[in-house]
Amino acid sequence: MTSFHPPEVLLLGPGPSPVAKRVLDAMARPTIGHLDPRFVGMMDELKELLRYAFETGNTLTVPISAPGSAGMEAAFVNLIEAGDKVVICQNGVFGARMRENVIRIGATPIMVNDPFGMPIDLEKTEAALKANPGVKALAFVHAETSTGVESDAAALCKLAQEHGALSIVDAVTSLGGIPLRVDAWGCDAVYSGSQKCLSAPPGLSPLTFSDKAVAALKSRKTPVQSWFLDLGLVMNYWQGSGARAYHHTAPINMLYALHEALLMFKEEGREAAFARHRQNHLRLVAGLATIGLDLLVAESARLPQLNAVKVPEGVDEGAVRKRLLTDFNIEIGAGLGELAGKIWRIGLMGTGSTAESVDRVVHALGVCLGARRA
Amino acid sequence: MTSFHPPEVLLLGPGPSPVAKRVLDAMARPTIGHLDPRFVGMMDELKELLRYAFETGNTLTVPISAPGSAGMEAAFVNLIEAGDKVVICQNGVFGARMRENVIRIGATPIMVNDPFGMPIDLEKTEAALKANPGVKALAFVHAETSTGVESDAAALCKLAQEHGALSIVDAVTSLGGIPLRVDAWGCDAVYSGSQKCLSAPPGLSPLTFSDKAVAALKSRKTPVQSWFLDLGLVMNYWQGSGARAYHHTAPINMLYALHEALLMFKEEGREAAFARHRQNHLRLVAGLATIGLDLLVAESARLPQLNAVKVPEGVDEGAVRKRLLTDFNIEIGAGLGELAGKIWRIGLMGTGSTAESVDRVVHALGVCLGARRA
Repeated sequence: MTSFHPPEVLLLGPGPSPVAKRVLDAMARPTIGHLDPRFVGMMDELKELLRYAFETGNTLTVPISAPGSAGMEAAFVNLIEAGDKVVICQNGVFGARMRENVIRIGATPIMVNDPFGMPIDLEKTEAALKANPGVKALAFVHAETSTGVESDAAALCKLAQEHGALSIVDAVTSLGGIPLRVDAWGCDAVYSGSQKCLSAPPGLSPLTFSDKAVAALKSRKTPVQSWFLDLGLVMNYWQGSGARAYHHTAPINMLYALHEALLMFKEEGREAAFARHRQNHLRLVAGLATIGLDLLVAESARLPQLNAVKVPEGVDEGAVRKRLLTDFNIEIGAGLGELAGKIWRIGLMGTGSTAESVDRVVHALGVCLGARRA
Repeated sequence: MTSFHPPEVLLLGPGPSPVAKRVLDAMARPTIGHLDPRFVGMMDELKELLRYAFETGNTLTVPISAPGSAGMEAAFVNLIEAGDKVVICQNGVFGARMRENVIRIGATPIMVNDPFGMPIDLEKTEAALKANPGVKALAFVHAETSTGVESDAAALCKLAQEHGALSIVDAVTSLGGIPLRVDAWGCDAVYSGSQKCLSAPPGLSPLTFSDKAVAALKSRKTPVQSWFLDLGLVMNYWQGSGARAYHHTAPINMLYALHEALLMFKEEGREAAFARHRQNHLRLVAGLATIGLDLLVAESARLPQLNAVKVPEGVDEGAVRKRLLTDFNIEIGAGLGELAGKIWRIGLMGTGSTAESVDRVVHALGVCLGARRA
């Protein structure tokens, strides 16, 4: 067995996205102690950078030391208790995962279902909240990675507020790619992933809790069922003034990487990053049209960072993906769940959202499809 | 705000341990997709390397995508259900954490307590197992990071077997530093951390389950309370033949690092690594004696990789640690829990276990203490 030397692949799938050399270099700097004062200073900067990305002043804004799925679980296990009712909007694979989380807590999920490829229906959601007084939270996915659909997070959070419910927002694929105005929209619990539009390696889950969410956490009747994800304990480490209480050993080098990726995001500027994602998405849509490919999602609900492309009739989608990877060093994603075999998912996330990425993938897809048709 | 440039620190605390340049370089290689066939090939090698380190043939041998604390939680939430009884041996801080895990599952912990600094008492443990028929598991810490004590894991696992209980072994600090013969000793669930004697950066938790533990997992009456840590789902990704089921996005670059660190461990050889840890421990004990310092733990139970050193009467232990860090770029650890203020913890773990490390820390401690006495 020998050292692993991965190839250089242009990552245009649903994540991980391409990680800049600058971020990889930051991650490879010397490991220091998780209680070292220099490290603690970096943690403070990291929290500030996360607040910039989330557009929030929330005190409880930290990276969870595990991937986005753990961020989702952290949001649910800290806010929801056995017996609580939670309205979950499902319009893709990740809504189903929220349901799993709620059930495993012993709480009751109330599902609002929309077809894969459609945004969440506000009227149905409002009806569910009205029909179920005392709902603890409204949970939804802002940017559905499985379908490429954006839902109206501002309106959904407003609905939650109007019905006295907390909002739990899955922003795994939205953070850094499209506006996510946590404070302005009144989102209560929001989690994301490091490996999508922030373009850090996978493994961390940025999370932010509003004061209302923190108050809900503090007034729980039962302990959080996960010790590792108990934000009351995590906060003692991330927010301790002076002597920080040891909870778990922070993933030092991964945090270096996230710090650097967030710094790059701030240097570019939020709005500039969103505009770039939008512009390259439009370039992709135009390019795909030239080779006869169309998108699954209606224009008004399309995510610029995650493009669900319809597989033409008679095309073996797996063979095309395989050829893109082996002949062109480009990774794109398959469909998930009920969309398996029906769509490709082309991610233009973070540093992967460039005109060059678009041109390379359109060219390569054109060659693969042309070859099939010939 | 600018890029973070950590200083070079000789990490001789309770972890993280020094990470070799070779491992940092591996981690900084290009990120590829978590379903890429090249990555899947690396995953297979990684499982083999973990089996070598754990001395096991267990099929279910994987790195959990989060730090050691999550590895602990994974072991408990997958094997223990509400209403189960678990005997927990506590002789340090991490036994208390096991108790927390068991309580949060709704199971009943039966505590066997020994003083901090002493190994687990086998007779008391046997008595607890005898007094509580039907115990689901016996849980203990092999190498107590908070005290520097080794307990007799082989004998404890044998006791568990004799009483029809599963053994849950915390090997966070033992794996790679002292023998941990999972198959020979009949350990059922064993978890560790990447940042101790394996000298990878923190953030991953190697874990192995015996066939008996897997059978227990499969015959659960209730779902695992954590979705993220549900090993039934994790296995579908790590062990799937052909199409691997997506569970969460693996922490790609961290896994590169662990692969490289395990490869270094295998190149050196298990027994050679254990001998090196032992040799440098003896060098440290001898060196400390020359400056009037003694160890907390009796010789027979001392961990070579984690040395609890008694703070001399009248010495401000925090000031000494601070000076070691600022003047000598050496990190050592403070006491935890009831040993806070009473001991220093000097780790000689993984690549940190060298004669040079020993000589540097003994010299620096001598200077600090001499200066105080003068």
